[in-house]
Amino acid sequence: MKLYSFWRSLASFRVRIALNLKGIPYEQVAVDIDRQQHHGDAYAALNPQMALPSLVLDDGTVLTQSLAILDYLDEACPGPALLPEDAKGRARVRALAAMIACDAHPLTTPRVQRYLTEVLHVDDAARAAWLRHWAAEMLAAVEAQLSSHPATGRFAHGDAPTTADICLAGHVTFALNQGLDLASTPTVKRVVEAAMALPAFASAHPLAQPDTPESLRRNRAP
Amino acid sequence: MKLYSFWRSLASFRVRIALNLKGIPYEQVAVDIDRQQHHGDAYAALNPQMALPSLVLDDGTVLTQSLAILDYLDEACPGPALLPEDAKGRARVRALAAMIACDAHPLTTPRVQRYLTEVLHVDDAARAAWLRHWAAEMLAAVEAQLSSHPATGRFAHGDAPTTADICLAGHVTFALNQGLDLASTPTVKRVVEAAMALPAFASAHPLAQPDTPESLRRNRAP
Repeated sequence: MKLYSFWRSLASFRVRIALNLKGIPYEQVAVDIDRQQHHGDAYAALNPQMALPSLVLDDGTVLTQSLAILDYLDEACPGPALLPEDAKGRARVRALAAMIACDAHPLTTPRVQRYLTEVLHVDDAARAAWLRHWAAEMLAAVEAQLSSHPATGRFAHGDAPTTADICLAGHVTFALNQGLDLASTPTVKRVVEAAMALPAFASAHPLAQPDTPESLRRNRAP
Repeated sequence: MKLYSFWRSLASFRVRIALNLKGIPYEQVAVDIDRQQHHGDAYAALNPQMALPSLVLDDGTVLTQSLAILDYLDEACPGPALLPEDAKGRARVRALAAMIACDAHPLTTPRVQRYLTEVLHVDDAARAAWLRHWAAEMLAAVEAQLSSHPATGRFAHGDAPTTADICLAGHVTFALNQGLDLASTPTVKRVVEAAMALPAFASAHPLAQPDTPESLRRNRAP
């Protein structure tokens, strides 16, 4: 499989974790968002939405949208399950994932930041406050869900990592980058630390990718 | 089942369509977002994220996040399938749904509009332009996906309605409300007209709900 991705893209981070958890070998093809490579003809032909990531299967099928890719990998590939077996548990995990992937992450993407800056003329301080606001709001919402539900275990749902942990790892990485801390979200902190201790998560981290800028790179091994 | 919803909420619209397609009887409990009822103690106890909709099953289980609820209904309830049978088809439908539910809809929700107005002091014209921008961007992206893919049929994927049509119906309803038209997205137009001609879609429309304001209400029957 070929994963068209960008080191900093949190949606790419999700798919890398899932591929690692499943033990699926893949090649990463870097698409540099900062240099607008996702708007080039070559990538647009692959994914008309011009968003990252895209996963190209060995038969040439192109899959897009990280949540859809995670479900595909879980349905079609062997390896540890990314969702619980029971329908209600699956619904809880998918809801936690959607909270982050639908209600938080899209508000902080480069295209939205560009609109704030270029169209609404929002200055850097207000743009940074925007990012912190949505990151903090979602940390609190996830904490409320995790801390109030009996199914929360070592991970977000039970004692094995799921799609919920995959999405949460990316959100926490983003929140920390915005200068937030996890002092008021102790369940989130505990769960994400358990997830990031797994090699499948650690080696998928934005700062450990082939296209991570050398000045930011950290060792690939956890 | 009890659906905590709001007439205008597009995520509630999605779940109403799915329940209708499955033929599942449900009671709607109106949560008035304009009056901040979703931030009241009663609703927060049900759904700590304080977002709509929530679906309460007959055993008391609370399901949240529309995409997760749609998958639950498809896995746990009889009736017509909301997703294709093959894993690649399911991935395509889920990707189309996620494009709308993750990359467009969250940018236009009341909490985001409130932040634009109250924190960034964006005026009404610029706020309206923001809504139109993201609505139009996603119409174009969905058109590009639908018009370029051989699996597009009478509906977004093949000849039966799926989760993709459910999300698209809401997005087009929103886009039309923002004054956009579908002249440059003919495939979207054709597919959504086919979907909205189905009673399951028409009777779920925001303007046909028990809590729709009388002045806006239209006949419930299609």
